[in-house]
Amino acid sequence: MGEWFTEASTYRHQASLSFKIDNVLCREKSSFQEILIFENAFFGRVMAIDGVTMLTTRDEFVYHEMIVHPAFSVCPGIQRVLVIGAGDGGTIRELTRHPGVKTIDWVEIDGKVVELSQLYLPSLTIGNHDPRVNLMLRDGVSYIEEYSGEPYDLIIVDSTDPVGPGEGLFGTHFYRSCFDILGEEGIIVNQAENPHYSPEWVTGINQKMQKIFPVFSFYQAFIPTYPSGHWLFGFGAKKGHPETVTKEPSFVSDLKYYNAEIHKAAFALPNFVKDLLKGE
Amino acid sequence: MGEWFTEASTYRHQASLSFKIDNVLCREKSSFQEILIFENAFFGRVMAIDGVTMLTTRDEFVYHEMIVHPAFSVCPGIQRVLVIGAGDGGTIRELTRHPGVKTIDWVEIDGKVVELSQLYLPSLTIGNHDPRVNLMLRDGVSYIEEYSGEPYDLIIVDSTDPVGPGEGLFGTHFYRSCFDILGEEGIIVNQAENPHYSPEWVTGINQKMQKIFPVFSFYQAFIPTYPSGHWLFGFGAKKGHPETVTKEPSFVSDLKYYNAEIHKAAFALPNFVKDLLKGE
Repeated sequence: MGEWFTEASTYRHQASLSFKIDNVLCREKSSFQEILIFENAFFGRVMAIDGVTMLTTRDEFVYHEMIVHPAFSVCPGIQRVLVIGAGDGGTIRELTRHPGVKTIDWVEIDGKVVELSQLYLPSLTIGNHDPRVNLMLRDGVSYIEEYSGEPYDLIIVDSTDPVGPGEGLFGTHFYRSCFDILGEEGIIVNQAENPHYSPEWVTGINQKMQKIFPVFSFYQAFIPTYPSGHWLFGFGAKKGHPETVTKEPSFVSDLKYYNAEIHKAAFALPNFVKDLLKGE
Repeated sequence: MGEWFTEASTYRHQASLSFKIDNVLCREKSSFQEILIFENAFFGRVMAIDGVTMLTTRDEFVYHEMIVHPAFSVCPGIQRVLVIGAGDGGTIRELTRHPGVKTIDWVEIDGKVVELSQLYLPSLTIGNHDPRVNLMLRDGVSYIEEYSGEPYDLIIVDSTDPVGPGEGLFGTHFYRSCFDILGEEGIIVNQAENPHYSPEWVTGINQKMQKIFPVFSFYQAFIPTYPSGHWLFGFGAKKGHPETVTKEPSFVSDLKYYNAEIHKAAFALPNFVKDLLKGE
């Protein structure tokens, strides 16, 4: 049978998704978490952190396109971006494809994730050394609390789950700090878990974000290697309508997932998700 | 650890989805296939046929709402329905919720699936004994070939994968026979696999259906327990536009997934699916 990697914790231990391991590229403990990168004949390279799948090089395009590009269709003038997390580099890569972006401040707590991704996941890290990117290896919560520079146009919170190092990135205090350092048309997008196995995480994000951001919606994408494949992103803004495409997403070519119809479609939530958010 | 059920064949044997088995309710070989039904603390009851997950009582609402209701939004006058497959009864249940439907001819090859579902999956089979339902235990391909009655308004092909007993339900010959027994505004909907692990099945359906039906599109739904969670349905018609909601889907109450926005959104395909269908 060979060795397999199995993720069960995020499936409530009642189901699990496993990947065949053809070859382990690295298995290292950083100060924060355990990072595993291995090869698989179908998925390419797979990265797991603390036993949870972060990405496969086969389908990471869905997550990274969908966490970055929708904000630019709503607000094409985005120039100053702050990224929290995103150690694998995929979100940075997608951001650097926007010529209008002038600054990408990137705050990642775990330098080991950045380093190992650069070594073993080169297709994700091609934006890391773009001159607009300023990588800071530190805690995102304290960075945002202490920040006193120019307001950001967009904050992307590309975090792990709300356990371990990622926990603080799902709190009211953090969301309020984000609000405070966003400009008047500022947008925040965060990875927002799934409604099947983690409905309590989804409602937690919803309740906290709704209190702080005048505009807040979830949108969704099909991510085959994440639990349930039904993944949510949070979209918070100070004003506007996230479903409305102000500018057709022709700004970036060669997209494999995102397009204008997908943008609108992504905000159409199934009844059970609407009911969950209404607290029914 | 206890016993687990693992599905790997439809994940190209490079990944697998497993479910914890709390209690086996039945494991029987019919003349056609092996049927397993078991209990799981999170998913409720799970049915697998020949090692492939058919449904869990927790999330089957997505599949069954989405294979039935979109056709009724496009063509609210549907009266005569033919169902091929659907042994678990879920599709029949959703059809019987439409008061306008007068006849549901139901052709299922394997009576054992119907029988075991009635015993162990009662939440799915509540429509089986509706007076409009005519169950015929026989092969769908020959039924359609030999049919000479009134044309149908809707054919739903709710089949297993295109291997084993389900194979004939994915062939050009079968699709042409379906065309011939549909009325002038006739619609056919079929379960159409997923674009991640089975792109060759998807393109096969597309190429064959496009040749026979003047109108053909795929639409999609989030199904957590099917491979990749990104499930496609084929929508073929003699005329019309499947994306257009002629009648708001208020005809059925208590839907857990489907609504008017989901209808339109379901037809918005990601770029990689469009490219797959274009043969790029």
